[in-house]
Amino acid sequence: MGMTIAQKILKAHLVDGEMVLGQEIGLKIDQTLTQDATGTMAYLQFEAMGVDQVKTERSVAYIDHNTLQSGFENADDHKYIGSVAKKHGIYYSKAGNGICHQVHLERFGAPGKTLIGSDSHTPTGGGIGMLAFGAGGLDVAVAMGGGAYYIPMPKMVRVNLVGKLSPWVSAKDVILDVLRQMTVKGGVGKIVEYAGEGVKTLSVPERATITNMGAELGATTSIFPSDEATKKFLEAQGRGDVWVPLSSDPDAEYDEEYTVDLSALEPLAAMPHMPDNVKKVSEIGEIKVNQCCIGSCTNSSYYDMMKVASILKGKTVSPEVSLTISPGSKQVFNMLAQNGALADIISAGARILECACGPCIGMGQSPESGGVSLRTFNRNFEGRSGTQDAQIFLVSPEVAAASALTGVLTDPRTLGEMPEIEMPEHFTINDNMIVKPAENPAEVEVVRGPNIKPFPLGKALEASYTGKVVLKTEDNITTDHILPAGAKLLPYRSNVPYYSNYCFINVDPEFPSRCKEQGGGVIVGGANYGQGSSREHAALVPLYLGVKAVLCKSFARIHKANLVNSGIIPLTFADPADYDAINLLDEISLPNVLEEVKNGEQVTVVCGGKTFKADCEVSERQRHALLAGGTLLYARQQNK
Amino acid sequence: MGMTIAQKILKAHLVDGEMVLGQEIGLKIDQTLTQDATGTMAYLQFEAMGVDQVKTERSVAYIDHNTLQSGFENADDHKYIGSVAKKHGIYYSKAGNGICHQVHLERFGAPGKTLIGSDSHTPTGGGIGMLAFGAGGLDVAVAMGGGAYYIPMPKMVRVNLVGKLSPWVSAKDVILDVLRQMTVKGGVGKIVEYAGEGVKTLSVPERATITNMGAELGATTSIFPSDEATKKFLEAQGRGDVWVPLSSDPDAEYDEEYTVDLSALEPLAAMPHMPDNVKKVSEIGEIKVNQCCIGSCTNSSYYDMMKVASILKGKTVSPEVSLTISPGSKQVFNMLAQNGALADIISAGARILECACGPCIGMGQSPESGGVSLRTFNRNFEGRSGTQDAQIFLVSPEVAAASALTGVLTDPRTLGEMPEIEMPEHFTINDNMIVKPAENPAEVEVVRGPNIKPFPLGKALEASYTGKVVLKTEDNITTDHILPAGAKLLPYRSNVPYYSNYCFINVDPEFPSRCKEQGGGVIVGGANYGQGSSREHAALVPLYLGVKAVLCKSFARIHKANLVNSGIIPLTFADPADYDAINLLDEISLPNVLEEVKNGEQVTVVCGGKTFKADCEVSERQRHALLAGGTLLYARQQNK
Repeated sequence: MGMTIAQKILKAHLVDGEMVLGQEIGLKIDQTLTQDATGTMAYLQFEAMGVDQVKTERSVAYIDHNTLQSGFENADDHKYIGSVAKKHGIYYSKAGNGICHQVHLERFGAPGKTLIGSDSHTPTGGGIGMLAFGAGGLDVAVAMGGGAYYIPMPKMVRVNLVGKLSPWVSAKDVILDVLRQMTVKGGVGKIVEYAGEGVKTLSVPERATITNMGAELGATTSIFPSDEATKKFLEAQGRGDVWVPLSSDPDAEYDEEYTVDLSALEPLAAMPHMPDNVKKVSEIGEIKVNQCCIGSCTNSSYYDMMKVASILKGKTVSPEVSLTISPGSKQVFNMLAQNGALADIISAGARILECACGPCIGMGQSPESGGVSLRTFNRNFEGRSGTQDAQIFLVSPEVAAASALTGVLTDPRTLGEMPEIEMPEHFTINDNMIVKPAENPAEVEVVRGPNIKPFPLGKALEASYTGKVVLKTEDNITTDHILPAGAKLLPYRSNVPYYSNYCFINVDPEFPSRCKEQGGGVIVGGANYGQGSSREHAALVPLYLGVKAVLCKSFARIHKANLVNSGIIPLTFADPADYDAINLLDEISLPNVLEEVKNGEQVTVVCGGKTFKADCEVSERQRHALLAGGTLLYARQQNK
Repeated sequence: MGMTIAQKILKAHLVDGEMVLGQEIGLKIDQTLTQDATGTMAYLQFEAMGVDQVKTERSVAYIDHNTLQSGFENADDHKYIGSVAKKHGIYYSKAGNGICHQVHLERFGAPGKTLIGSDSHTPTGGGIGMLAFGAGGLDVAVAMGGGAYYIPMPKMVRVNLVGKLSPWVSAKDVILDVLRQMTVKGGVGKIVEYAGEGVKTLSVPERATITNMGAELGATTSIFPSDEATKKFLEAQGRGDVWVPLSSDPDAEYDEEYTVDLSALEPLAAMPHMPDNVKKVSEIGEIKVNQCCIGSCTNSSYYDMMKVASILKGKTVSPEVSLTISPGSKQVFNMLAQNGALADIISAGARILECACGPCIGMGQSPESGGVSLRTFNRNFEGRSGTQDAQIFLVSPEVAAASALTGVLTDPRTLGEMPEIEMPEHFTINDNMIVKPAENPAEVEVVRGPNIKPFPLGKALEASYTGKVVLKTEDNITTDHILPAGAKLLPYRSNVPYYSNYCFINVDPEFPSRCKEQGGGVIVGGANYGQGSSREHAALVPLYLGVKAVLCKSFARIHKANLVNSGIIPLTFADPADYDAINLLDEISLPNVLEEVKNGEQVTVVCGGKTFKADCEVSERQRHALLAGGTLLYARQQNK
């Protein structure tokens, strides 16, 4: 049977499991990327693994999120990431060099390779035929250490592109139409491949806009074939050598198919407050606009910016509109400055922001109260802009630029003849904001500001365990109960010791000090323990406090996985009635825990004068992680 | 007797008082400017005056401070300022058009004119021979309404400039040397004039760097002659018509004189943490540098930026350094983009920030913990950068750029031959980010976001007053007691009704509700009432709550003036023992208050079964303000 593009890459990278729909498969990862908001934790995790040099073909640490730097914590994070990168064989892209996905596409991505990144828009790399996934910081750390990346084998979806885009209609309109068809949940557990005659009418930046925003479909990832356009793009980046052709077999089978008739598309907009709430600009009408923001990993390429410059040239932004422009990378910015396009943009009255994520992640440029903001970004969730009652529309750069001039939502087809933008034969290549890893890593000292503390690490499971019950909770404990979040505590995500003072603070304020007195212990919980968010810290902080096991009536799924990742044994009462026999500060022991976990048997518990059984329902991989003391330590063993 | 430049301008604008050292003089103000951090309050005050169109020759509202826009409040402020400007005859410079002082110099300033601005660096205008003062928001509001601006007649200081700057030594080094000589307190109550043969060797941007940072001397203002260089600059701005020559008379007398030998100067730096802590760069040595920031109203001109571009061209910023560049205005930015200099700067690996105050006011780019940051700014107070333990050095653009390349503090004279920067014959003029006032002001609606509330206004004094004692305090009440500040409350400076809930919160939490129940009343205080900061809100909020008088043992000076500005009568016990007879919620009356205040007599007080006298020690001008119900209402009467 023929294979899809994704199946070919998956097969070439399969190191564990079978490619059977829904089954867990382990993949060799060729490249990783991080951004700074998630990167600090990912590198703390990587350090905890004790791996000297990354085992990927290329790992890159980008600084693009916290570039406003309001407070020392951001600069400290950047310094830490820069130094840890230098020491461990990771390339470091300095603040100002651009958005991770744009720069990675330009300078590092390659068709046929696997990439995971600690950012949900990592699938941008699918624009050049990479199989690129957004992942957690721990996944990236494990992959840098040479470990596999695990996903459930996804369904295959084909989107057939027919015809050719009309003037003033753009790649953004393609993905908005796919979102309209599939919805924001339609991609879950699926890889979306683009196919058909329309593919070759789209340049790489256009394809990357489409795969980028596949994240909003909930898709595992999205991918385009690697063809002549891919080759030309890579050659223009001086990287023609990494090109390989990639296409699906004619008899490849897909689980679902969709069609987008490019010729029939019109300029579209995602209305507030959801990316799949898509309408035609011509139908929405001339609503008054307060702000237009052009940029983000979705629409900040040279191609996008040149279109914008040509629309703005010789004109003036409406006095009622604030127009912001954030070029996606130093390369883009530099080329615009070289060819005069940037002067055209500035002259028209745009505000030029740094090459970074900026307003797309709510980093500044919050609109006025109730303001209408047209953004070339990928998400328009309520409040994400920083203004709770703002109305955010997701649009193409053409729509944003045209509307900035008129002050109302404007169909760019009213502008007359569309300027022709040529893709450059050669991009300006100057990687001097990318710092290479050290030649003598041993000489590099990792710089930890006062807010950056080492990542807590578990211990390999011993034959038996005896400790105290350090907490007994009711049912339905959430991760917010375990560890509150909020603006006050977020800056301490890289400071587990400090953060630990808030563990269970709203349930039992004595919990952290009790753990310290007792040298850790066991948490006893009710049903549905750990429901809520996926935050890893709800397991990391108990690990730091010495919690060795959580024994409860039932677990929420993700939190249970996080406990295993941290080397904390998740146990459920075989007989829930045993819960009642246990009291706070009782001695509790697991006399045969090592053998029992190893053999997949029920775990014996002795507590409150009783001996009873608990289940430890985990997968084979998780079992190994528990024995090793956590996923990181297991990965370390694997790679020795 | 001959006159100084300042004396000539003061004389031409004198509307009240006599030019006798230390006596209060009232000046006609030709131009005003505001920035957005102080502007919202200034325009609320202006609105409260009830003046339809500004009576100045030119008033301009700039947006340059809160341009990161983290939260809706900033954009709401900008919208409010934009609409109020449009309605009342004020020019509005949009966010992105640049720093108020730089843009004002380029597009509006004129020799011989008076300018006040709600920003301490307004003296920048002295670079083209304006008499330009930093002032409070209320002063600016009154001036926009046509009222006089009052200052004590200052001393005159002459700084003789001898010789000519050596290569790589710049205007920043001149003012740093003046700071070294005079100290940060040396300019208080004085106007600093620059004179001597050295003047004509300095271009307008260089002169403006020097007058700008006169603010750090504590000087009333600083000024240069208006000469051929001034004329050439204004002609290059297409504004040659506003030029007039200005110089001091040969026999003008100065109270103090200083000399700076330009030829002998070397590159200097103000060491942490004070602008007058000045040493030679060559003496400080090659300390390691983490950050260099170029920009601010002190050093962001075309001339400064071109010097920086020429130093960076073809080079690479040290991998250990974050170099930020904020051009001072859209004009500067646009010209750099047109002539290729911006491409050189980007190419070298600098981070380009928006044309705004940015890191100079702690708006982002906080250095790393303990980081060394070289900044071309004007203030290096401890913690101002946002990083408490950062080490901030104030330097010239040359020193900052040279050091960014090497990664250590670098004397630019080591760079070899200095590139020659020509001042342009014609600046690029495109004022399309400056919005003109409306032609039909009546049609303009002022837009008030939910956080912008009208400014409270007093009432003209009536013949008698009777109310309740709504608070009785101990001695030494500070303005922090009256109204706490802090990050939590700062965003509510334009929302007096909300802010009023915090009035005296730490002294008597019932105070706001009591005032509302009683319809206001009288505060009885001890000695030294109102000590601490100069915040106007400590009077405005009590005004909003209906406080008509404060009767105490003694006042702190500035708070007393603020009370008068708000129309609250400041009374001191003739016999402090009368304090003891008064209790909370006693009825208190001032049966003849109007006549007594009008005639400068002691005020009769009836309270607690006793009748006694209180003093109302205010100036003649303040007396009129109290009768009118506050300074704004008095100014309104004056201008009718």
